[in-house]
Amino acid sequence: MGYERKNINSMQGYQYGEQAQGADILKLNTNENPYPPSPKVALALKSFDATTLRRYPNPNADEFCALVAKLHKIEPNKIIATNGGDELLRLAITTFVEPHAVVGRPDPDYSLHSTLAEIQNSRLYSIPLLQNWELPEDFSAKMNAAQASLTFVTNPQTPSGKLLSLSKIRKLVASLNGVLLLDQTYVDFADDKHKQSSIDLINEFENVLILRSLSKSYSLAGLRIGYALGAAQLIQPMRTKTKDSYNLNSITQNLACAALSSQEYMQEIWEKIKISREDLSQSLTAIGWKITPSQSNFLLAETTEKIPKSAENIYSELRQKNILVRYFDQPRTRNALRISVGTQQENQRLLVALKEICAG
Amino acid sequence: MGYERKNINSMQGYQYGEQAQGADILKLNTNENPYPPSPKVALALKSFDATTLRRYPNPNADEFCALVAKLHKIEPNKIIATNGGDELLRLAITTFVEPHAVVGRPDPDYSLHSTLAEIQNSRLYSIPLLQNWELPEDFSAKMNAAQASLTFVTNPQTPSGKLLSLSKIRKLVASLNGVLLLDQTYVDFADDKHKQSSIDLINEFENVLILRSLSKSYSLAGLRIGYALGAAQLIQPMRTKTKDSYNLNSITQNLACAALSSQEYMQEIWEKIKISREDLSQSLTAIGWKITPSQSNFLLAETTEKIPKSAENIYSELRQKNILVRYFDQPRTRNALRISVGTQQENQRLLVALKEICAG
Repeated sequence: MGYERKNINSMQGYQYGEQAQGADILKLNTNENPYPPSPKVALALKSFDATTLRRYPNPNADEFCALVAKLHKIEPNKIIATNGGDELLRLAITTFVEPHAVVGRPDPDYSLHSTLAEIQNSRLYSIPLLQNWELPEDFSAKMNAAQASLTFVTNPQTPSGKLLSLSKIRKLVASLNGVLLLDQTYVDFADDKHKQSSIDLINEFENVLILRSLSKSYSLAGLRIGYALGAAQLIQPMRTKTKDSYNLNSITQNLACAALSSQEYMQEIWEKIKISREDLSQSLTAIGWKITPSQSNFLLAETTEKIPKSAENIYSELRQKNILVRYFDQPRTRNALRISVGTQQENQRLLVALKEICAG
Repeated sequence: MGYERKNINSMQGYQYGEQAQGADILKLNTNENPYPPSPKVALALKSFDATTLRRYPNPNADEFCALVAKLHKIEPNKIIATNGGDELLRLAITTFVEPHAVVGRPDPDYSLHSTLAEIQNSRLYSIPLLQNWELPEDFSAKMNAAQASLTFVTNPQTPSGKLLSLSKIRKLVASLNGVLLLDQTYVDFADDKHKQSSIDLINEFENVLILRSLSKSYSLAGLRIGYALGAAQLIQPMRTKTKDSYNLNSITQNLACAALSSQEYMQEIWEKIKISREDLSQSLTAIGWKITPSQSNFLLAETTEKIPKSAENIYSELRQKNILVRYFDQPRTRNALRISVGTQQENQRLLVALKEICAG
């Protein structure tokens, strides 16, 4: 044992999805967008003046937040911009959860939650989702009984891709005593109606944070930028106290503005991905996989009696064919693969490989 | 009181140095480098392929760390790259300091320390520096008596610019029971001999972290990148457990590599700044200011009986002339201005203004 705190010593770090490189590798494991970012982003990059880098960046990404405010029609003091959505998840724990206090979440959900709880030395309280991936009726009652200071819910969910209805989310917020962090990382691939109207929650309730990320929606996982919306009393402590002073560099702020200003381009890409997703879903179903209806840019494909091998074996055989998908060795997902939706051509390569593996 | 933790509710956030914009503004308040970053950085920016941004970045900035390893002749597992030096300061507290435990530092030093200690709900223990800015003889004994888990020491110091000798730092590391975080943000403006040989400390001792930043030295405050060196047992818990999974974006990693590969260009700039610093120091002394010999890119200028106004008033009058310097309303610095070294031309403008203000 070294100098680190006991909870740090005993914890495992976060397990990344594999970031393999190589021309022949088909990467369908970390939900990256298969299309390039907006041409406006490339243009902003080329025209960025490197000499300005000698100056500190704007500490709160004011220009970017002004664009977010306009996009969602909310006040800028209800917005914080962060170094990817992951920074916001960390800040929410740092700001709202005492060490030894409880952080809640459904199980399964994003695996980073447990890492962040361990770092803060807080207790992660996981409540299993129902078989249909819905939250159990007593979810918030149990969270309140456990005195959860903060509850994470990703919607659309990971790894199922299912979208919980807005009315259920509203009931959840209204009944939770603590803060709900609604992680909408994947919402741009969901119904437009849900996407817009969920924003109203932050004006109705003082205990909900909505997290958005540009990583998947805007094809900018490599740029690290996300933002959260919420009542000013939730946002301000993170924005003025707990975040690193200059958390976003000047280039990121500049390119993120260009990305947000590309709604038309992005809308086309989101539509293309939705179409690919439905096609892939049908094709996988046709060869014997069970697919949960997804409103995200990935599918959870579960084995059935028509699939002659285990999900884990198929994962490994795909790996040998340079196709990466995600396998989580957890109770609810042991018989499943989480597959990011690629282009039609990429999805075709996956389908051919799956047929070969299951025929072989 | 809202949903935030009590310690967060009661704390103040970090107070930034003013980030004013405008063509006529002379910004000598936050120690930014007056020269542009290396032309290699501009070139790397122009040739960066924006389409690669759809992918996650390398989680540990491996290429950058390999260059750091080569530069300092140490193993890559003794290096962590961070989102500015500030991220490393936060990670050190998160990793090594329990809530309610003690973080030590000399007083004055970097004002962010107290903000970070408040966020972790740990106790900041400050020991006043001697009149000549040296650490008191019993500094480490007192830190040990207070059971400081972590002690911050910035060297060259801020705000004095003084460089503590390597032999004193070595004695300090050897006698501290906890971890020493030696913040060398400004060391590239110090004697080359000190700069090189201080690295040896991490091979000699298991309880010292050395922090370097590209913000000032490499004119990259806007890019947010720094790194720390230390024994693997200190570095690894931060690198694999407590840092955000993807803390540095792809562009930052790429441009930082270009910067580190520009040693010759940077060396010239460091020499220019050292010359400007000595010239400015002499000129300020000549008009009645007391200057602590600085090995940094700033000067602490204290008023004497020859200066007819208070430091605070002079700070305000400079502000009216669009010249920003830093004024800290603290016991040791109430009679002083911290002035970043600019180009010879910028320093000249400052001197003219100071003469006007003190004559008026």
